[in-house]
Amino acid sequence: MYSAAIEELIEKFERLPGIGHRSAERIAFYILEHMSEEDAGVMANSIVRAKKTIRLCEHCQNLTETSPCAICSSPKRDKSTICVVERPEDVSAIENTHEYMGLYHVLHGALSPMDGVGPDDIKINELLLRLTDGEVKEVILATNPTVNGTATAVYISKLLSPFDVKVTRIAHGIPIGSDIEYADKITLIKAMESRTPMNG
Amino acid sequence: MYSAAIEELIEKFERLPGIGHRSAERIAFYILEHMSEEDAGVMANSIVRAKKTIRLCEHCQNLTETSPCAICSSPKRDKSTICVVERPEDVSAIENTHEYMGLYHVLHGALSPMDGVGPDDIKINELLLRLTDGEVKEVILATNPTVNGTATAVYISKLLSPFDVKVTRIAHGIPIGSDIEYADKITLIKAMESRTPMNG
Repeated sequence: MYSAAIEELIEKFERLPGIGHRSAERIAFYILEHMSEEDAGVMANSIVRAKKTIRLCEHCQNLTETSPCAICSSPKRDKSTICVVERPEDVSAIENTHEYMGLYHVLHGALSPMDGVGPDDIKINELLLRLTDGEVKEVILATNPTVNGTATAVYISKLLSPFDVKVTRIAHGIPIGSDIEYADKITLIKAMESRTPMNG
Repeated sequence: MYSAAIEELIEKFERLPGIGHRSAERIAFYILEHMSEEDAGVMANSIVRAKKTIRLCEHCQNLTETSPCAICSSPKRDKSTICVVERPEDVSAIENTHEYMGLYHVLHGALSPMDGVGPDDIKINELLLRLTDGEVKEVILATNPTVNGTATAVYISKLLSPFDVKVTRIAHGIPIGSDIEYADKITLIKAMESRTPMNG
């Protein structure tokens, strides 16, 4: 139908999340018709560059160019609180509220027995290691209010019971079934404020 | 908020059509978290390669790697009919019906006085040049049923009046106000079949 180079470009964009065949066609034609060769080169380069330079922060496991990341190494952040989230986008959503001043921990997923995702497949051990020096006083579990997210929160809260640390769950001000990433700021602030204890 | 390389990647995707900030974030994190460095390289490369190798067909002005393009150089196509469309996506939509066997002409836009797009800004002269040898017997104007698309069809039909060629307009089986690109196959087939003469 199209020439090989166009087909390949469409196919590449089609594989990205949230992009169907028509959107991929649209993007491919936009690049071919409206982008300069230089701009296309810059775009291609930023994909390669990001992929090469981005790694996980040795502490919070968030995506970063420098480890420790900017949040973990900031003297302004409250190092006694860790907010545990599923994905880097969740850090972004909570940071956008400008209300939370603690640290984060990115699990890179949630427990999901159906998909074969167990405790060793997400960054739970890395979380435990951060609690050994006693500096952390509270762990806020801000996994998504889904079945998997809730199960992950319960699992972690049990794992943390031997530690001298308060374990809380972000409040269900967030509509059940949707993602933290898409919550509005006010809902997120309320949900953080009314977090409830999970270990009594 | 994010590190520079992530911000840049998000910003690049945000510039593509139909992709908002959240979608761009999602895509960027997908690339960073779920794509191998090799796959990301292949994707980057396909952008650069497509941009480098794709040009316009010397006859129909469609995007192609080889000029003349596969359709223009196919012995199976009926060279007496040219279907004029606004964009390469429209060729794709009509080809998907597998009913039309003539040639195409891609204008790369429509006349739009409000946006300063005049006859010299789209491929109208290139269309006229294709009619000089007398081989073409019919020109089907399949520009979009929008104000600009209709104005473009009327303008071209007047330009073609000196030529010994039948000028037809794709039928308005296509819902007014939407794009040819998004019409379903049956509607497109019906609309092509019931095309109506524009020059008496």
